[in-house]
Amino acid sequence: MNTVPGARIESPMASLDQEKKAEALRALHFGEEPLLLVNVWDVASARMIEAAGFPAIATTSAGIAFAHGYPDGQKIPPEHMFAAVWQIANGVKAPVTADVEAGYGTTPESAMLTASSVINAGAVGMNFEDAEDDPVHPLADLSLQLERIRAIRETAARLNVPLVLNARTDVYLKQVGEPSKRYDEALRRLSAYRDAGADCVFISGLTNRDTISRFVADLRCPINILAVPGQASVAELNGLGVKRISLGSGPMRAGLGILSRIAEELKTSGTYSGLENAPSHLQINELMRSCESQ
Amino acid sequence: MNTVPGARIESPMASLDQEKKAEALRALHFGEEPLLLVNVWDVASARMIEAAGFPAIATTSAGIAFAHGYPDGQKIPPEHMFAAVWQIANGVKAPVTADVEAGYGTTPESAMLTASSVINAGAVGMNFEDAEDDPVHPLADLSLQLERIRAIRETAARLNVPLVLNARTDVYLKQVGEPSKRYDEALRRLSAYRDAGADCVFISGLTNRDTISRFVADLRCPINILAVPGQASVAELNGLGVKRISLGSGPMRAGLGILSRIAEELKTSGTYSGLENAPSHLQINELMRSCESQ
Repeated sequence: MNTVPGARIESPMASLDQEKKAEALRALHFGEEPLLLVNVWDVASARMIEAAGFPAIATTSAGIAFAHGYPDGQKIPPEHMFAAVWQIANGVKAPVTADVEAGYGTTPESAMLTASSVINAGAVGMNFEDAEDDPVHPLADLSLQLERIRAIRETAARLNVPLVLNARTDVYLKQVGEPSKRYDEALRRLSAYRDAGADCVFISGLTNRDTISRFVADLRCPINILAVPGQASVAELNGLGVKRISLGSGPMRAGLGILSRIAEELKTSGTYSGLENAPSHLQINELMRSCESQ
Repeated sequence: MNTVPGARIESPMASLDQEKKAEALRALHFGEEPLLLVNVWDVASARMIEAAGFPAIATTSAGIAFAHGYPDGQKIPPEHMFAAVWQIANGVKAPVTADVEAGYGTTPESAMLTASSVINAGAVGMNFEDAEDDPVHPLADLSLQLERIRAIRETAARLNVPLVLNARTDVYLKQVGEPSKRYDEALRRLSAYRDAGADCVFISGLTNRDTISRFVADLRCPINILAVPGQASVAELNGLGVKRISLGSGPMRAGLGILSRIAEELKTSGTYSGLENAPSHLQINELMRSCESQ
């Protein structure tokens, strides 16, 4: 494991392994309990989550961007993002799904390149969103977005990896259009993403339980909801029919929060109590040693 | 900032800037208060500590190794370590000192290469330890270690960067020899490191206040102590004459601790209270945006 980031996995064995992992990840969207994803940003966080017994690992694109010195929103050079995904996918045995934002390009060809980079990095799932960095057009043109989704599906088929595609709309997160029209716009988009080949659809920025329930009933495919403080609990979301719950960049930012409190304590009281609940050096060393053998 | 990791900084301007930063870092070892270092492992953690007002940034080699999927102790390929140092040094304005373990080699030539890699990565300080991965000889031969320290000094002089060299002995950490003889052995080594050109000496694994006090009196050069739970407070260490206090991999591991608690809460109670104290996405995004302008 962990040779040079950016190296490619193209052997039939790797694809066979990826095929099985992709199917395992897909099946997790159809269980009795929702798939719970504690998003990770480096190999250490990925190993912690795998060791805690989670059956799949999801990356946070914001967390990876922050760790590398970039703001969120496609500012990180894609090769750094893919190298981070590569390290994570090669550092755990569980299936890995990578958040690759809006795919680092606008054309179907760029979506193909992104899908192949995700697969070559060893991931078996991919988050793909419709946000655009354009104040006039905050969301991608629907027909273009569908071409890109179809391009991702075709690329995955050509590479023999049944990639689990999680298609996200940012209608709610970016508060696009009149509030009264957002449900219809999001439903129109997500239905089309589903029909174009998405395995799961992701509605960012949504916490209203009735609205979540309506989407579940109207879409009839797995739905991903972001868990933030104030969001309905796992049991409640499960009751509403949500099949995938992820934490986004929250856990990575929580780590920066404790770092900030440790720093403040050092400067003010000159003590180190913030370090008391940290896993020991020996524990983390053992956790990392366990990936060497892969 | 943040072009390709591994790119080299060799312009006279960069060296001039590095010269000033190295002198600023050195001066921080001679203030009335000890230099406090909250060690960082990626650009986000480095930016948090700089934004909290700390005048210098130190890396944790264990934390960087963990983040990239390796146990501590020179298992990470050196090019990954230097690339991480490069990203951090180019992501903050403060002087950066890099922990590069035992220098990734045993010869004076490898020490030269390591020192030039540290300087080329943009750092202005370097931790260099005498641990060896050899159960029979847990510490480097003293005369060889001195040759390596002199090689580092010569390399820094040739590159016109007055690198702040923090030479560490692991006599206590690795419990080398009879307990009653450790003080003399550590003092013999650290005096020699100081005379060979170390700016500061670092005694890992030491918490006994009387012993710390004896080292301060006998060495008469800046001393670095690792702060761990149970270690004397900053005020107490300052009273003993300690000039540099660092936290090692503690803060990085504390972040993994909160990650583990968030994951456990998600699995058991199905709630997200562990995310409540996290800095917001907007806050971290702004923090990272501030490095873009550098």
